Amino acid sequence: MLLPVIMAGGTGSRLWPLSRELMPKQFLKLCGDTTMLQATVQRLQGLEFETPLVICNEEHRFIAAEQLRQIDRLNHNIILEPVGRNTAPAIALAALTAIRQGQDPLLLVLAADHVIQDSETFHQAIAKATTLAQADQLVTFGIVPTAAETGYGYIRRGVATSPTDQAFSVAEFVEKPGLTTAQQYLESGEYYWNSGMFMFKASVYLAELKQFRPEILAACEAAISNVEPDLDFIRVDKEAFSACVADSIDYAVMEKTTKAVVVPMAAGWSDVGSWSSLWEISSKDQAHNVHLGQVFQHNSQHNYVYAETGIVATVGLQNTVVIQTKDAVLVAAKDKVQDVKNIVQQLKAAGRSEHYIHREVYRPWGKYDSIDNGSRYQVKHISVKPGEKLSIQMHHHRAEHWIVVHGTARVTINEHEQLLTENQSVYIPIGAVHSLENPGKIPLELIEVQSGAYLGEDDIVRFSDRYGRS
Amino acid sequence: MLLPVIMAGGTGSRLWPLSRELMPKQFLKLCGDTTMLQATVQRLQGLEFETPLVICNEEHRFIAAEQLRQIDRLNHNIILEPVGRNTAPAIALAALTAIRQGQDPLLLVLAADHVIQDSETFHQAIAKATTLAQADQLVTFGIVPTAAETGYGYIRRGVATSPTDQAFSVAEFVEKPGLTTAQQYLESGEYYWNSGMFMFKASVYLAELKQFRPEILAACEAAISNVEPDLDFIRVDKEAFSACVADSIDYAVMEKTTKAVVVPMAAGWSDVGSWSSLWEISSKDQAHNVHLGQVFQHNSQHNYVYAETGIVATVGLQNTVVIQTKDAVLVAAKDKVQDVKNIVQQLKAAGRSEHYIHREVYRPWGKYDSIDNGSRYQVKHISVKPGEKLSIQMHHHRAEHWIVVHGTARVTINEHEQLLTENQSVYIPIGAVHSLENPGKIPLELIEVQSGAYLGEDDIVRFSDRYGRS
Repeated sequence: MLLPVIMAGGTGSRLWPLSRELMPKQFLKLCGDTTMLQATVQRLQGLEFETPLVICNEEHRFIAAEQLRQIDRLNHNIILEPVGRNTAPAIALAALTAIRQGQDPLLLVLAADHVIQDSETFHQAIAKATTLAQADQLVTFGIVPTAAETGYGYIRRGVATSPTDQAFSVAEFVEKPGLTTAQQYLESGEYYWNSGMFMFKASVYLAELKQFRPEILAACEAAISNVEPDLDFIRVDKEAFSACVADSIDYAVMEKTTKAVVVPMAAGWSDVGSWSSLWEISSKDQAHNVHLGQVFQHNSQHNYVYAETGIVATVGLQNTVVIQTKDAVLVAAKDKVQDVKNIVQQLKAAGRSEHYIHREVYRPWGKYDSIDNGSRYQVKHISVKPGEKLSIQMHHHRAEHWIVVHGTARVTINEHEQLLTENQSVYIPIGAVHSLENPGKIPLELIEVQSGAYLGEDDIVRFSDRYGRS
Repeated sequence: MLLPVIMAGGTGSRLWPLSRELMPKQFLKLCGDTTMLQATVQRLQGLEFETPLVICNEEHRFIAAEQLRQIDRLNHNIILEPVGRNTAPAIALAALTAIRQGQDPLLLVLAADHVIQDSETFHQAIAKATTLAQADQLVTFGIVPTAAETGYGYIRRGVATSPTDQAFSVAEFVEKPGLTTAQQYLESGEYYWNSGMFMFKASVYLAELKQFRPEILAACEAAISNVEPDLDFIRVDKEAFSACVADSIDYAVMEKTTKAVVVPMAAGWSDVGSWSSLWEISSKDQAHNVHLGQVFQHNSQHNYVYAETGIVATVGLQNTVVIQTKDAVLVAAKDKVQDVKNIVQQLKAAGRSEHYIHREVYRPWGKYDSIDNGSRYQVKHISVKPGEKLSIQMHHHRAEHWIVVHGTARVTINEHEQLLTENQSVYIPIGAVHSLENPGKIPLELIEVQSGAYLGEDDIVRFSDRYGRS
């Protein structure tokens, strides 16, 4: 029995402005029509595996749930980390969850924000790892390097585990090298990139963790002992988990255990750690440009150009990344994209919101987009999914006008219920208790015009909320 | 008596996406708080002059009128060209208009889309030209070259008109030179850039035009003989003016007349013919960047960055122009900006509208911005100036919801009149005859939500329009 454990806790800023704190890389459609999280699950198609356990931050829970629902893999299987404690505790939570369900599956630990282009080779590596993990080994997948990368840690292989199976003992984990060292690693043929993917029995991992870092295991056991599923989520006890030491599985277990083995893999892997690495793995036109959306080019080569809305035009442009979103544009030299984090720091220091949130905001019931605002008013486009309902709420400082432009709304104002359909409108006075629901089978789209002296998101009194937010 | 004649007929695409066919360069605020048209008038401050005559295309008439009104220079003084016929006929229309009013002023012909940084030197040149024009000379202003420009025509000077006044006869007009020739021109000290600015008596210009191109004069006389002022506009007869030959004042008169003199001027002149020339004349930060709007930079030098809405961030960027508008972003190498016209051609060929119109559209009564749209609906932010009124109208295919968010509206629906103020709304059914007016003293802002099967701007039946559009 194979249980994928998908680590979806990243909050990377390296792909800003597309990735934001509330919408990090793993939830974006960076390669094709599915998000990276969804692609991580779908890449396993063809193998036999259980419904994956997904581990993510509490603030991303509704996005993760919606994305798993879309691919039919949502089944009380999202573990919410109240705080980040690195990979050793996160994997322990998953292993304990599996054991509590009375089973001892093989855990296949995957990152939700990596790309693997060759699924067949990936599946072959999993098959090799399965044999080893069933024999109580802790398997790490080593990526066969294709360049002298200085941005990754490396694994030096030891002796072959058998003459035929092309797996090796782990001789050494090494930190990110300098360029000369990386070049030597590449030429030696004995080093692999440390991908952060693993396979082992839940019980074996927990036993090793108990041996080397018993305090981490104890904290995780305390954090998960009394939790009950809440909607789609497995909520971890915040106080107990906060007391856990933060450490990576590499340091806590893999470097210490005698059971570590490495399975080499050459499957077109990338951690998509920057706009330039995304350019490298994306399909390009004849001028070596990647272009997504409404892009017009003249005499431009080797660029990555993304137009979310409206058009982007380039003239005489080379080796540049242009990312246009609804509220922010990034233009960066392709060999300087690692400095995007400097812009994110500037935005934080300036008290802006563009590093944190998109103009379009996801909610468990759907989403809204702030399409216009000014003194004493704001206009939102609100989308409610079929069958979903916003909380029963009241505002102290604003009145609202709702105009339905698609679908049907069930609106309750001070206990008076009515159905509104396309081209109908309703007015919600200041102080009125109101709720909005989509009782239909198609999305509900409405325009909300807010009017009042204070229009902050925090002017909301929730009386009842089906998503546990009241 | 000095009568400025301001040529505002350009439809340049070289500053796209800020300039569009419906909003060309002369109407933009490219340098400071006033538009280029307004700056052209205000640059004359300190001289004695009549209310300027402004010549522009019919489709720009409301923009020109609004901009002149803002600086208190609107007084039935906008000549509308029904078709473009180049400068010789346009100046003839202005000269004939002046003569018809019973006067023979000195015409000071200026382009509405040039920058002159040193007003004092400009005024001194005008003073010199005034003496010469009063003596029946045709004066052209020659810009003392500061570089070997290949993008301008040149004027070779002849003999000095007097030992003291630093004006010269015109020896020759020459076409745009190659780089080597331009270098020779620059070094010789005998050549000036042809600025397209002139001064002469109206009667003298008309007399010279009659001598060299009598058919142009005749066509212009026919085109303007029967026109009456219409609102703020002097409308030229379309049929008669269309029959006129197109020609420049240089070819038609200046190269032929014996009365041409050139007054040299070194006043920080620029025709702002490209994004790079705008960068050159704009004030820069220590890293030689020009930045307007919410711009965040890291390790970036020698750029022109304009953020109309939202933020623009640059990382490791050099010598690049980034222009962000509500519906289009341009990223261009600064030494390739002349190729922006290629993008404009691509947009035309693709049947787009972004070369023609901005998302924000100006109307005589104010403006609107299309802030959201989808299947069967569209949302507009409408701004109506105090005292202004939209046409009485009706739509066959759409209903409209109006929500006032600022100011007061007088709304008439099927002859029922009502006043709406902030936070009030009204519904206009399909087929209802309706009108909207701002009876107040502050701008009226409202959100319009359109709903229907067809939402094109042409679904409008106008019953009455105070701006002559019904």
